[in-house]
Amino acid sequence: MRFAIAQSGGPTCAINASLVGVHLELFANGNDSAHIAPIEVLGVRNGIQGLLEERFVNLNEALQSEDDVDLLRKTPSTALGSCRFRLPAVGQDDSIYQKIQHILEKNNIDTFFYIGGNDSMDTVAKLSAWLSAHNSPVKVIGVPKTIDNDLVCMDHTPGFGSAAKYVAMTIQEIIRDSSVYNVPSVAICEIMGRDAGWLTASTCVLRANGEDAPHLIYLPESDFSISQFLADVREQLAQRNTVICAVSEGVTPPDADCFRSGTNDEFGHAYLSGIGKFLETQVRNEIGVKVRSMELNVMQRCSSHLASACDLKEAENVGRYAAKLAMQGRTGRVVTMRRVSDAPYRVEYSDTAADAVANITRKFPSKWISDAGNQISDEAVNYFLPLIQGEVAPVMRNGLPTHFRFAI
Amino acid sequence: MRFAIAQSGGPTCAINASLVGVHLELFANGNDSAHIAPIEVLGVRNGIQGLLEERFVNLNEALQSEDDVDLLRKTPSTALGSCRFRLPAVGQDDSIYQKIQHILEKNNIDTFFYIGGNDSMDTVAKLSAWLSAHNSPVKVIGVPKTIDNDLVCMDHTPGFGSAAKYVAMTIQEIIRDSSVYNVPSVAICEIMGRDAGWLTASTCVLRANGEDAPHLIYLPESDFSISQFLADVREQLAQRNTVICAVSEGVTPPDADCFRSGTNDEFGHAYLSGIGKFLETQVRNEIGVKVRSMELNVMQRCSSHLASACDLKEAENVGRYAAKLAMQGRTGRVVTMRRVSDAPYRVEYSDTAADAVANITRKFPSKWISDAGNQISDEAVNYFLPLIQGEVAPVMRNGLPTHFRFAI
Repeated sequence: MRFAIAQSGGPTCAINASLVGVHLELFANGNDSAHIAPIEVLGVRNGIQGLLEERFVNLNEALQSEDDVDLLRKTPSTALGSCRFRLPAVGQDDSIYQKIQHILEKNNIDTFFYIGGNDSMDTVAKLSAWLSAHNSPVKVIGVPKTIDNDLVCMDHTPGFGSAAKYVAMTIQEIIRDSSVYNVPSVAICEIMGRDAGWLTASTCVLRANGEDAPHLIYLPESDFSISQFLADVREQLAQRNTVICAVSEGVTPPDADCFRSGTNDEFGHAYLSGIGKFLETQVRNEIGVKVRSMELNVMQRCSSHLASACDLKEAENVGRYAAKLAMQGRTGRVVTMRRVSDAPYRVEYSDTAADAVANITRKFPSKWISDAGNQISDEAVNYFLPLIQGEVAPVMRNGLPTHFRFAI
Repeated sequence: MRFAIAQSGGPTCAINASLVGVHLELFANGNDSAHIAPIEVLGVRNGIQGLLEERFVNLNEALQSEDDVDLLRKTPSTALGSCRFRLPAVGQDDSIYQKIQHILEKNNIDTFFYIGGNDSMDTVAKLSAWLSAHNSPVKVIGVPKTIDNDLVCMDHTPGFGSAAKYVAMTIQEIIRDSSVYNVPSVAICEIMGRDAGWLTASTCVLRANGEDAPHLIYLPESDFSISQFLADVREQLAQRNTVICAVSEGVTPPDADCFRSGTNDEFGHAYLSGIGKFLETQVRNEIGVKVRSMELNVMQRCSSHLASACDLKEAENVGRYAAKLAMQGRTGRVVTMRRVSDAPYRVEYSDTAADAVANITRKFPSKWISDAGNQISDEAVNYFLPLIQGEVAPVMRNGLPTHFRFAI
């Protein structure tokens, strides 16, 4: 039996752990007496784009040892490469579906696994529907990942916990750095999250270790204005020397939009940049205290040296569950996680229809945002805390981590 | 016997290890039979500024257990707080010297230790000269630190190795993140270093693990122009899909200075910001490929979770050596490190006159910069590599590191 796996969308620290999970579980199942045919797994380079160009890597050959598998599991970003590619609506351009069907059938692919976010789940929904409607034997299974934690039908997404751990640890160190001078000062950390503020909100976990910062937390889910922001900062400065702010890149002040670049990405998402730098300038000009902004940038999605052990384990389990769905002959499904309890923390794996997940953004719950729209509740701390537990030691050489790379 | 220690200048990951070194060695010496009087060590809050205000913390009381000491050693930034304070020239305003002398003598301080960079060594030189000239029994010893690695009379500075390790590991992860899409792209990492490019140059250590990136490295020590930069990027894009650039914040293109904020810090240093963002815009407009810039910002000087074990050990040893100088009755001296060999790596500790170190910037050697001014030689890899060896596990609680904090 032959399978194909591809990765899509923005990189995370856990997406390769899901790849490992699918791969290992397919082989574990392949050893069952019920399956006579040997298992073969193809990695597809650069997502759907690489599939259209039949750029494959044989995972049986590439992952020969347990060390290879372990290194891949701990390697950040998408080892197979990624793409930003949106399938057209069925009926709009069927030729691309025909081509994909032809390639998958020609290569005797039993199931095509697609690891990605809600855009990729759109691909899983459309492609599985097309293949079923055209009596193709090929099945499609979606494996969720995103640092944004914004997929519906699941408690959280693989990749989020590691990003949250990076952001919290980095801000904790920034707090130490920002409070050395005995003068009033403001530090502004800009955190990823275009439409949903989960990652920015997760900085509240520092409270678990007695940090009172971030003192102000702003999400795209709340109304935001420059004037209210400056009032909030002034109020905080009256109470303490150093004010730490966590601001989502997706925060949209109606009273200032000059910081936007105005360009859109391939999915039509507005490309945001610079709310942190913009607010820094506002504080400098309007309040006149020492101020610095920090954009945590791509580091928050690729810092595997700070990966959450919980996250990597779950990402692998989600991949394994996807392989089991394939062995059951399912198609058009996406793996989900349901939280059974916070303490002891426990999740159950399940699945749902891909079109229930596709294209929908799960917002951060308003019940966990303070009335003033600038803080996060203790209930959210309990939600986030289990997701950042445990450390993953990188494989070091020469004082630096090593990463898995597929031969080109 | 009573001693006082203060920290000054920009934070590093190793400055608290030096504090620990001074403290432990003073007590180790205090146990000698030759010293009858009990040893007492005062921490001074916020450097010379806190000394003028007599804001002390008793280190005997604050550091009671080995766990306290270990946590302080691994805590980033200046635990005692810092300042940016330049002593006036002697003769220009003697009252401040008289006040410092009075405070030190009133508190029976045997030696005042000042941990800092070349601005702080200016303070050590001036203050020790004043005290000697005025027959004060108080001595002053300088303990070097800076992530910039730009102090003369020493092979390298405590704090640099940890910053270099952070920068190299972070760029290694950025390389993975930047190369996922099968399209031409450029990533620009802006690294600290106003006048000296040591930290930016140190990214060449990735070569030791087979990374060919960064493909272009720009230091303040070389001539830089936007037109040559764009030509370099175009040449690299002809050879590979993803081009990674490491650029020092201090790079100064004569053909563009509009990215400067124009403000100066307390020492008259120009406050630089945004060369990375500026070059990003240049690449987007002039070459038209996918491009992203990342400012490693304060994270490169405070990310203790990535501290170099070599750096922290040496920083502590430098502190211990300073304590020994004090016990020998020396004043106006700064601790230095001399490299005896690269492999096996070995350093010797020594000392030099503070005024030989004060106010001088040690530039990155031109012999290690390529003729084109955009790459670093393999000899430099051998220089940098020992400094980033070894990892230091943070003290974790709730999935996050804990930090030492002095009670206010």
